[in-house]
Amino acid sequence: MDKKKIMILGADGYLGWPLSLRMLAKGNEVLGIDNMATRRSVEEVGSTSALPIGSPENRVKAARKKFGGEINLINGDITNHDFLYKSIKEFKPDTIVHFAEQRSAPYSMIDVKHAGYTMTNNIVGTINLIYAIKDLGLNSHIVKMGTMGEFGTPKFDIPEAAFVDVEINGKKDKITTPKWAGSWYHWTKVHDTNNLLFASRLWGITTTDIMQGPVYGTRSSEINSEALFTRFDFDEIWGTVVNRYCVEAALGEPLTPYGKGGQVRGFLSLQDSMDALTLLIENPPEEGEYRTVNQFMELLSVNEIAEIVKAESAKLGIEATIKNVENPRVEAEQHYYNPERKVLPSLGFKLKVKMKDGVGQILKDLMPYKKNIEKYRNVIMPKTKWKA
Amino acid sequence: MDKKKIMILGADGYLGWPLSLRMLAKGNEVLGIDNMATRRSVEEVGSTSALPIGSPENRVKAARKKFGGEINLINGDITNHDFLYKSIKEFKPDTIVHFAEQRSAPYSMIDVKHAGYTMTNNIVGTINLIYAIKDLGLNSHIVKMGTMGEFGTPKFDIPEAAFVDVEINGKKDKITTPKWAGSWYHWTKVHDTNNLLFASRLWGITTTDIMQGPVYGTRSSEINSEALFTRFDFDEIWGTVVNRYCVEAALGEPLTPYGKGGQVRGFLSLQDSMDALTLLIENPPEEGEYRTVNQFMELLSVNEIAEIVKAESAKLGIEATIKNVENPRVEAEQHYYNPERKVLPSLGFKLKVKMKDGVGQILKDLMPYKKNIEKYRNVIMPKTKWKA
Repeated sequence: MDKKKIMILGADGYLGWPLSLRMLAKGNEVLGIDNMATRRSVEEVGSTSALPIGSPENRVKAARKKFGGEINLINGDITNHDFLYKSIKEFKPDTIVHFAEQRSAPYSMIDVKHAGYTMTNNIVGTINLIYAIKDLGLNSHIVKMGTMGEFGTPKFDIPEAAFVDVEINGKKDKITTPKWAGSWYHWTKVHDTNNLLFASRLWGITTTDIMQGPVYGTRSSEINSEALFTRFDFDEIWGTVVNRYCVEAALGEPLTPYGKGGQVRGFLSLQDSMDALTLLIENPPEEGEYRTVNQFMELLSVNEIAEIVKAESAKLGIEATIKNVENPRVEAEQHYYNPERKVLPSLGFKLKVKMKDGVGQILKDLMPYKKNIEKYRNVIMPKTKWKA
Repeated sequence: MDKKKIMILGADGYLGWPLSLRMLAKGNEVLGIDNMATRRSVEEVGSTSALPIGSPENRVKAARKKFGGEINLINGDITNHDFLYKSIKEFKPDTIVHFAEQRSAPYSMIDVKHAGYTMTNNIVGTINLIYAIKDLGLNSHIVKMGTMGEFGTPKFDIPEAAFVDVEINGKKDKITTPKWAGSWYHWTKVHDTNNLLFASRLWGITTTDIMQGPVYGTRSSEINSEALFTRFDFDEIWGTVVNRYCVEAALGEPLTPYGKGGQVRGFLSLQDSMDALTLLIENPPEEGEYRTVNQFMELLSVNEIAEIVKAESAKLGIEATIKNVENPRVEAEQHYYNPERKVLPSLGFKLKVKMKDGVGQILKDLMPYKKNIEKYRNVIMPKTKWKA
């Protein structure tokens, strides 16, 4: 591949950092932007990353040492449109990857302030990005991170498309693929998708809108030492289910599926997320086209995941137990779930990590840091409840 | 009817002021909140109200003189949740009418700042309102102003319902009624509808979500003198189509339908909007229920409206011409349009004003102020364009 200019918004985050490394390792010019909000917000809820992560400066140094190149990682906020315009105008990116959103459903559900913050931060950031591309007259490819959670758990097969044919009371029409989100966070992603789709129709913005399932894992091709680790969250607010169970196992706590545990989602490893993103970046849609991608690998229920973590723990001599707890969320605990997935296979995507292998690696990576995590034991059980 | 406590957010606006008068005239206790943003924003685009409006203080005085009661009109911003919580907590309203949104499509399309402002202002205001009701443990009825523009112009008959049955690729499900908005402003209304619907499902908030068509007119039962006038906007940014044509006619300018002029919308007079709102306030849905209302009276194309204004102008000796101009918006100029309307008739709603009569009244009301409007001639023609 030709060397490209890749701008990554949210470059300090769980996915942003590994993608910055990947893009650098592939010889691209990488500009990362992050306002470091996740570091502060995880601290706000009394938690921390289970794996130690370096300061932004030390991360960049470690990347330089490993790959011999420079990630230009700038502390800045894309809800400031002057800053964003200036950054884009100077760098003239081929691709802008947009991860710069508040990404926790429970965080958005804490209270009115967190709900309003999530709305403003996510929606205004995306609006600013849209306008920057339009006003600067660029044709950068926007790769925007949405979520499979935008669809909820419908009774129809989730199409991998922005629009779908329907019949309503005997009349046929094409509508935006129906969404029903389960938290303010998820709704901001729906709002962003609608805003981006509207803008792309008006102004022909080249877009890949990724509907991604929950990502788990500690490793990607580029991450093989402590200095390059990406953050690993495990608390009730910031930890997604697989990573949270792994820390529960490591601490000798029961694994805690929420409610009946029949909730099925489409999961993928950090490695596979990076491989999928790389393919999408290297194979953009036609200029002005809006492409929707359903990005997930394995459909599993949260009970099945608990069983996988239990089995992998056993291999390391950890006797994990499973204890379903009251569901803090409002969601279907038994439901139909059949999302389509064609775009990534059509680009030649090959699965690298099955969940059991990814979980085994997580457990091994956590062990040396068990003592550090010990004191955060009390932030794992759900306290943030959807119901009043 | 029993005396009720009615809180009106956006009480200084085109609809907010007449509704404040109506609620007062009916013997209710009225608390109005407004941050006076529309006054400032109309000035910002170099325009003014065609009819003179008093200062908030003088309006309240005029209302006291006419109806012998007090509208408590407070200058405040509902995007400040502390202020909103305090106001609601003290007043304990039976009904909260939510008009406190940026309500101009062209204003939202000016540039990145106006797009971001419209998103933040409208979405955060509604989120704050939702949380205030939930956190204060009240069961106030929220009457929220949405727009028929949320639906766009679909090929199906627009149901008067939050959810609709569909079949997607052979599978049946119930989805939120499909939306496709035509400006950032209209999208904020879609986002608000989704947010409110989500909250009402979680927390059982009693809600009437009004999908209203464009309102025109100068009069309601309570407005019969200059001192009580509501604002009347006519510029390209703030003036809606009927009111804009009337000012064009008054100034001897051609009436200017955008594009081919086949755009059909569901219009209603200010009088009928007030009557409809009064019915909805006096007949709330069941506690915890979410009710969607399609609020419009006459389906007319913008060309047909120009013909009505032309004919009514002729009666006053004004020879108006019609000149279709390039459409600054992106919208279908010939399309199917069949929205359902059952809720208001089921509550006994009776139409009072047909457009030709409403337009005749507007023209008569404008004549004494023609000289004041003269100098704003240059703000009528569209300059704010949807396309880059």
